[in-house]
Amino acid sequence: MYKEAMEAPEVVARQIENNRAIMQTLGREFQANDPYSLVTVARGSSDHAAQYLNYLAGLLLGKLSTSLSLSLITIYQKAINVERSLAVAISQSGESPDLIEPMKSFKEKAHSSVALVNAVDSPLARVVKWVVPLQAGEEKSVAATKSFIASLTASASLIASMGKLRELQNGLLELPENMKKAQDLDWSKAISKFSKAKRIMVVGRGLGLPLALEAALKFKETCSIQAEAFSSAEIKHGPQTLIQKGYPLLIFANRGPGLADLLVFAKEMRARKAQVVLVAPKEVREKDLIFPETDHPELDVICAIQAFYLMVEELSQELGHNPDRPKNLSKVTRTK
Amino acid sequence: MYKEAMEAPEVVARQIENNRAIMQTLGREFQANDPYSLVTVARGSSDHAAQYLNYLAGLLLGKLSTSLSLSLITIYQKAINVERSLAVAISQSGESPDLIEPMKSFKEKAHSSVALVNAVDSPLARVVKWVVPLQAGEEKSVAATKSFIASLTASASLIASMGKLRELQNGLLELPENMKKAQDLDWSKAISKFSKAKRIMVVGRGLGLPLALEAALKFKETCSIQAEAFSSAEIKHGPQTLIQKGYPLLIFANRGPGLADLLVFAKEMRARKAQVVLVAPKEVREKDLIFPETDHPELDVICAIQAFYLMVEELSQELGHNPDRPKNLSKVTRTK
Repeated sequence: MYKEAMEAPEVVARQIENNRAIMQTLGREFQANDPYSLVTVARGSSDHAAQYLNYLAGLLLGKLSTSLSLSLITIYQKAINVERSLAVAISQSGESPDLIEPMKSFKEKAHSSVALVNAVDSPLARVVKWVVPLQAGEEKSVAATKSFIASLTASASLIASMGKLRELQNGLLELPENMKKAQDLDWSKAISKFSKAKRIMVVGRGLGLPLALEAALKFKETCSIQAEAFSSAEIKHGPQTLIQKGYPLLIFANRGPGLADLLVFAKEMRARKAQVVLVAPKEVREKDLIFPETDHPELDVICAIQAFYLMVEELSQELGHNPDRPKNLSKVTRTK
Repeated sequence: MYKEAMEAPEVVARQIENNRAIMQTLGREFQANDPYSLVTVARGSSDHAAQYLNYLAGLLLGKLSTSLSLSLITIYQKAINVERSLAVAISQSGESPDLIEPMKSFKEKAHSSVALVNAVDSPLARVVKWVVPLQAGEEKSVAATKSFIASLTASASLIASMGKLRELQNGLLELPENMKKAQDLDWSKAISKFSKAKRIMVVGRGLGLPLALEAALKFKETCSIQAEAFSSAEIKHGPQTLIQKGYPLLIFANRGPGLADLLVFAKEMRARKAQVVLVAPKEVREKDLIFPETDHPELDVICAIQAFYLMVEELSQELGHNPDRPKNLSKVTRTK
């Protein structure tokens, strides 16, 4: 896991370089023939990447983007009207039947279809109109790292191409260097603070929510900690009743218009004497860990998950787990 | 909470009777002028009702339905293209700014807009084209019960009207009687099995997922148990690594084409010696609790949450909590 996470900057550089042509093609395609909305098809970590894509589609293109309930198709065999929507599947292996079946049914019926997939000769790649290779190379660790990061950057590239967003494209070019800087951040404070945690709430907002979801899943997979992710708004509608003295909280407070609210939330939770680990921009005095920055605010979370992976891998080892082989899980999960 | 939950059958009967005219109007409106997709705007329990609506829209109308990330509008002030979508807000109080602001911006721009709301003179009701009263009467308990059930039935009524689904409409007419039968089910086995639980995973599939989400939230709010909900497919992509000997699991296995998979999952978890409480149709030999049935399979989950509420209220009391007043929560939560 450590080794694969460390490869991520190189994966991103390779992806951006090698996918230049396909991204130009997709850009022309969707600018000429603009879909009304998007629909995403994914599971597990890839579904967290899909939620990043969904949010970017709203934020940068002003489009609705729906994470499809796959059982509508795989269990109920229901025909869903997707004629005005671009269908996007995200997967490392491209092998889970619950991704292949919906995308197969969407190939003719959707506005268009794209797979962001690492295994380009997989069954998933054969049932879509356009294949965007993740270029992550072989990934052996059960807990995805570089393939997840590659899914985020492929999502950002797709949105940048669709919207002709030059600044985002430039930000992606600089991203590998920024990721290397993120690898050097010292997040060890989180290790000491969470080394006795049995449960954690991970909080994010906007683009920080997919980051929180992915972090919570990795706490589960590699550390057997029952971590659950919430938006800082949703947590107030019930879950925060659990947060008492000593309760462990990881708060991802990314820069931008949502920052102020996240800092207020962190302050409230500290007043309640919760065990808060606040990840915030370096200017924020009360931060515990530095939220890394990139050349484009929408890419910051990619560097943050990179720093998180290295921290959680170390925490896993310290707790006596094997981060590469969580119990009861295998690398390729086939569900329907 | 107990008293309000017991009022739910009467609330549903009143809602169906009193909303007959508005539902006919909405039926005519949307049959004449069919939206391409739906977009829902809600928080907390109401967002679980929205997920029920989203799934029904796919299952019975073949339409995409998106749960909107509210921060796109409330924090980023982003204009989202909703011109081909019916916007549906769901709320008890109709007062949270993060519902009002998006619906206000959608009033002119969306295909149409509807609020399913209990407080019909609330700010939310004033910014939508159509108001569907939940008819739940005053709700005092912080943990929503009858208003949540009323949100589910209003969602089902809306879908039935849009699709001219006579059988679903008839099922709704019979629902209050079926709910009373569900109130008499003996779910006390769950109380003894969960009385020492600190964490629980709640599993559902399809229409059972909103049920699992709502049950998990109520375990948190009324019992301070960190319960998290998953679909039986999603749980295999990581979270199940936590499920070891003695781990408490509540599995909602509703009848229909998803049942077989849910029973296999329950069997696998029992083989792992997890503490499984299986809610399944009465014919299923290995069930622990009976999953109530109605005249229409899509309404079964409404009776199931009714039975769950009575069980969890008793569990809360047994654990020494006050189910009506969870710590750190208030009845009306205003977020943005």
